[in-house]
Amino acid sequence: MSLALAGTALAQQGGGMPAPGPMPPAPMAAAPMAPMAPIDRAKILTDLGVFGDFAVYKLRPEYAMLPAAERKAAAAEVLALVEKHKDKVIVDAYLTRGFDAKSDYFLRVHAYDLAAAQKFLTDFRATKFGSYSDVTENLVGITKALNYITKQKSETLNAGLFAATYTDPTPRYAIMIPVKKNAEWWNMTPEQRLKEIEVHTAPTLQYLVNVKRKLYHSTGLSDTDFITYFETNDLGAFNNLLIALAQVPENKYHVRWGNPTVLGTIQSIDSVVKTLSDADRSM
Amino acid sequence: MSLALAGTALAQQGGGMPAPGPMPPAPMAAAPMAPMAPIDRAKILTDLGVFGDFAVYKLRPEYAMLPAAERKAAAAEVLALVEKHKDKVIVDAYLTRGFDAKSDYFLRVHAYDLAAAQKFLTDFRATKFGSYSDVTENLVGITKALNYITKQKSETLNAGLFAATYTDPTPRYAIMIPVKKNAEWWNMTPEQRLKEIEVHTAPTLQYLVNVKRKLYHSTGLSDTDFITYFETNDLGAFNNLLIALAQVPENKYHVRWGNPTVLGTIQSIDSVVKTLSDADRSM
Amino acid sequence: MSLALAGTALAQQGGGMPAPGPMPPAPMAAAPMAPMAPIDRAKILTDLGVFGDFAVYKLRPEYAMLPAAERKAAAAEVLALVEKHKDKVIVDAYLTRGFDAKSDYFLRVHAYDLAAAQKFLTDFRATKFGSYSDVTENLVGITKALNYITKQKSETLNAGLFAATYTDPTPRYAIMIPVKKNAEWWNMTPEQRLKEIEVHTAPTLQYLVNVKRKLYHSTGLSDTDFITYFETNDLGAFNNLLIALAQVPENKYHVRWGNPTVLGTIQSIDSVVKTLSDADRSM
Amino acid sequence: MSLALAGTALAQQGGGMPAPGPMPPAPMAAAPMAPMAPIDRAKILTDLGVFGDFAVYKLRPEYAMLPAAERKAAAAEVLALVEKHKDKVIVDAYLTRGFDAKSDYFLRVHAYDLAAAQKFLTDFRATKFGSYSDVTENLVGITKALNYITKQKSETLNAGLFAATYTDPTPRYAIMIPVKKNAEWWNMTPEQRLKEIEVHTAPTLQYLVNVKRKLYHSTGLSDTDFITYFETNDLGAFNNLLIALAQVPENKYHVRWGNPTVLGTIQSIDSVVKTLSDADRSM
Amino acid sequence: MSLALAGTALAQQGGGMPAPGPMPPAPMAAAPMAPMAPIDRAKILTDLGVFGDFAVYKLRPEYAMLPAAERKAAAAEVLALVEKHKDKVIVDAYLTRGFDAKSDYFLRVHAYDLAAAQKFLTDFRATKFGSYSDVTENLVGITKALNYITKQKSETLNAGLFAATYTDPTPRYAIMIPVKKNAEWWNMTPEQRLKEIEVHTAPTLQYLVNVKRKLYHSTGLSDTDFITYFETNDLGAFNNLLIALAQVPENKYHVRWGNPTVLGTIQSIDSVVKTLSDADRSM
Repeated sequence: MSLALAGTALAQQGGGMPAPGPMPPAPMAAAPMAPMAPIDRAKILTDLGVFGDFAVYKLRPEYAMLPAAERKAAAAEVLALVEKHKDKVIVDAYLTRGFDAKSDYFLRVHAYDLAAAQKFLTDFRATKFGSYSDVTENLVGITKALNYITKQKSETLNAGLFAATYTDPTPRYAIMIPVKKNAEWWNMTPEQRLKEIEVHTAPTLQYLVNVKRKLYHSTGLSDTDFITYFETNDLGAFNNLLIALAQVPENKYHVRWGNPTVLGTIQSIDSVVKTLSDADRSM
Repeated sequence: MSLALAGTALAQQGGGMPAPGPMPPAPMAAAPMAPMAPIDRAKILTDLGVFGDFAVYKLRPEYAMLPAAERKAAAAEVLALVEKHKDKVIVDAYLTRGFDAKSDYFLRVHAYDLAAAQKFLTDFRATKFGSYSDVTENLVGITKALNYITKQKSETLNAGLFAATYTDPTPRYAIMIPVKKNAEWWNMTPEQRLKEIEVHTAPTLQYLVNVKRKLYHSTGLSDTDFITYFETNDLGAFNNLLIALAQVPENKYHVRWGNPTVLGTIQSIDSVVKTLSDADRSM
Repeated sequence: MSLALAGTALAQQGGGMPAPGPMPPAPMAAAPMAPMAPIDRAKILTDLGVFGDFAVYKLRPEYAMLPAAERKAAAAEVLALVEKHKDKVIVDAYLTRGFDAKSDYFLRVHAYDLAAAQKFLTDFRATKFGSYSDVTENLVGITKALNYITKQKSETLNAGLFAATYTDPTPRYAIMIPVKKNAEWWNMTPEQRLKEIEVHTAPTLQYLVNVKRKLYHSTGLSDTDFITYFETNDLGAFNNLLIALAQVPENKYHVRWGNPTVLGTIQSIDSVVKTLSDADRSM
Repeated sequence: MSLALAGTALAQQGGGMPAPGPMPPAPMAAAPMAPMAPIDRAKILTDLGVFGDFAVYKLRPEYAMLPAAERKAAAAEVLALVEKHKDKVIVDAYLTRGFDAKSDYFLRVHAYDLAAAQKFLTDFRATKFGSYSDVTENLVGITKALNYITKQKSETLNAGLFAATYTDPTPRYAIMIPVKKNAEWWNMTPEQRLKEIEVHTAPTLQYLVNVKRKLYHSTGLSDTDFITYFETNDLGAFNNLLIALAQVPENKYHVRWGNPTVLGTIQSIDSVVKTLSDADRSM
Repeated sequence: MSLALAGTALAQQGGGMPAPGPMPPAPMAAAPMAPMAPIDRAKILTDLGVFGDFAVYKLRPEYAMLPAAERKAAAAEVLALVEKHKDKVIVDAYLTRGFDAKSDYFLRVHAYDLAAAQKFLTDFRATKFGSYSDVTENLVGITKALNYITKQKSETLNAGLFAATYTDPTPRYAIMIPVKKNAEWWNMTPEQRLKEIEVHTAPTLQYLVNVKRKLYHSTGLSDTDFITYFETNDLGAFNNLLIALAQVPENKYHVRWGNPTVLGTIQSIDSVVKTLSDADRSM
């Protein structure tokens, strides 16, 4: 699956004033349940005012003890649910088992209306697979226009953000990292914060070719200010990118950076459910 | 459901001396159990000396495995309980599943007598639905008169708090955020704290039109100084409001701001219970 | 139940040198088990060198699923145990369900010999009700003579501590709050600490009429320096008292103040067990 | 049970350079399993290079529901295991139920070879009683020669450590407290640290008569630098000792002091198992 | 089992720029599943760009209640899985029961492709033994070239790192300790960090003879910057090494050092599974 991104996300951090630009669509009253056209994936992944809902799950051990027939049917039930909600949400899945003590998989749900994401995730918990899943982390964010590295405020870096594009093979890995800044950061003037974000952005440009990123704003919606989301095929490069992000003064203002750091392989929903359902194993 | 509020809550923070004004009603000895008139909702939501008891719950997975008939009857049992206690408490419900790892729903109970809130919540835990719910957070607060942004102490801002009123569509979302200040804050003089609360209040006035708020005082009753409660239909505006609240010096004194941040959709109790009871699904 | 107290507890904080006075009774070798006179409640609640053992419990959900007959018998079994141990311990009970996520009730046990408190609490865990209770917090402290606000060290305040007495209706609420001070506090000279405790005590005198308090010393016995225990019928006054305690420099030395703050209604043991046993409800 | 100690343990804290003296016995290759002479208790409790393994357990509620016959046999099975391992380890037991939320009992295992302690504790988890026990804390330390209060470095205090000896009745209580120091402490010169340990030691000398102590070094073996272990019959004196230890500058370098503080009654293994097995109670 | 190491790992810490040298092999597209030659153990343990995946497990109590026949077969099933994946991963096992509250054993998996480590660990969770294991910690790191103590940057120390080699008996113990540095560290210049790493490395040289070490880089992959891994037969020496590492300024920049510290005995996978399966005990 391709993601239409650029380096824009990293430059969207912070600030209280959304840049002037197209207003997000007004939230609609609860739409009728009749089947409608599926959401345009490429569009929702670039629109502003879109909600990202990250739900991280750990499968309970009792699931493995269900009869094989029930586990075999699990994936189809989840896919049917995704199909049912396709006019309201898109869903991406990631297998995290083997990388993280607190999870086996996570879902990344996008919706124009957050209540629609809740509807999907609530219905998901009622599927066989979802009913055996415990939520271990759940974060909600919204996409916004660039705050700092705009053409007006930081022309050169803004050009740099669009000068390169992802050229590696299709990413196999995704990483979700919550970020929260302290009161000292938020009390700095916009100019001071712009300066630090410029210093933060410059060393990241070389990774545009091998790391995709997307930013969500969460202050007030969850216990984090941002949800940073990355995709890559080159974890060595990703490790170097995160070290570069640690090596700038902006890092001194972090009161949360990870906790958890959720690393997973990007897979189809079908594959995630089947892998964890171990459907070919009889009890 | 409409909430009679203004921006008063935010201005009620802090201080040890309640402003002179009507005394809260003296707590009564345990009132007789005979059916009495239901509590006046609009009045209890504006009275001082009222207790707010926020109980946050996660449903245990075993609930989903109960026979459909039991789950179908769950909502009626809870509604009957609310009816039984209607002369002592009012109850609001919120669905949080899909937004929060630590909860599926929360209840906000108001009572003039905190023991009456306990009676209701204890009886609630004895209903089928309540008996399968684990409490994950529980905070108690009391409403008090404005401490800072009063007509006497801060006339212009006080006027600003009442100059605008909520004009958006009926709020669909509620957010409960505990707040605790450090010893340095509490040791500042009332004049110093007034100044910081004025700086805190000013940028919030523009959100009176799209975010409702209510404040409860908790020092000594729970591990927080305040419970801040918001309702909105515009989560993008809410995110901007909370960023504005982060960007003032008063934020530097916070030792708790969230943890948890509880976001939910505002629903009838019937709807919350039915949604989580998945009553149409047979086992 | 009446408690013979004064404001002495708050003034007993800190210091490593007990004031000269009557020595606590030497711990006896394990006393014979023959029935003896019950402990003098009023005396043990004012004696020095007495152990207070606070055990905070959460009932497991499986308890509610026991047959009604078993739950009906639960209270009598607990009362019989209290009767059996009456020559060694006194026991007070508090219902916390509806106020606290981490507990449903707590017990406050007093004994001259801590091993006797352990014997009671161990036997309690073997009762039906106790066997379904998980301990979520357990703190041990000892009563000591005043350290600071003595007649010799602080005559005026000492007089103030005894100038007023509790005049409100019988308290319905109790609050248990652990307190721990940092190394900086403990390294201050006795004179410096006396000064801060005087500043701490002065604003509390007005609450002698509506808040009872008792202090236990815990350094080395549990992960806290003190256990502060309060009773009141006026939670608004209690909230103001705790704000006053927050507003003094002594608060800057706290590394634990709550965590948990345990608020409950004061009830007979019989009432606590019966309320949580929901004995009239058949399964 | 008598413990051959002196005040040496407190003076053994810190430093990276063991004092010159007899080298601890070289760890042997895995010794043969043939029955050998039991370990000399008095010797292993004073030797250097000995491992102390503190395992803290909470009994699962299901244990109480086992048939009485199984619970009756539990103690004998554990004693047989201790007997089987007597040539490799000694084991002390402590009942903590009623004092601590996170435990019911703990074991203190000594061995010259840490793998032997693991063998015992692993076999213990396979006994009926052990199989129903969850480990809630587990710390490993090693005994070393005095670092600071040696005859060469601090002659007067060293004499003081041996000038008095325990004279109270046999201790009934034990307390285990982990201690960890910050980087600032560890970066001080040996002379600076010696000075602070002298100030730390001086006020403890008066408690040699009523508190026994033993020190284990844990840096790198567990998440603590030291395990401090005390025995006493006088908890009031112990509380005063720990306050004295709080009141010295050395306390300012602590990043862990407790967490948990584990207080228990010293009992035979047989007594601990029988008490918690409630063997006389039928189901 | 012998490990081909030197002191190189400790000197590999930090920095964002891998030293020039042979590039790690480009990650292959998902390799075919046909049996291939097993991975060269000595080579993968010295190659760069290799992933180390540390999975720490606690066995659920229900495992001990399985019929003896099932527990007897557990080890063979795990060995067969290791055999099946031998062309993609190598696996080392460690028994931690008796040393650590949060675990019973851990696995250290190496792979050139992290997805292959996930595949193995996911399949492992589907074995009988794995299905009864809860993951309590899971950390991922990658091996990189030396950052600091290279011939070019620090010639003398670099020579020292290779001047001595492990001469003790085969190590019986392994210790895994996560390490994370603060923003202040990461914002120091490379020259400043080199200086501190030199001071850090010098006192470790004497332990080359009795402690093996290996370093993994984790920033962005888990909530740690490094995973340090040690093997030794002399825990007293290891304790002194870790104290030496505490006593340098570089330690002042640690925000995580342990938490957990995982100590275990090095055993064959067969031995770990059999020990914890207690296969000779009937239910």
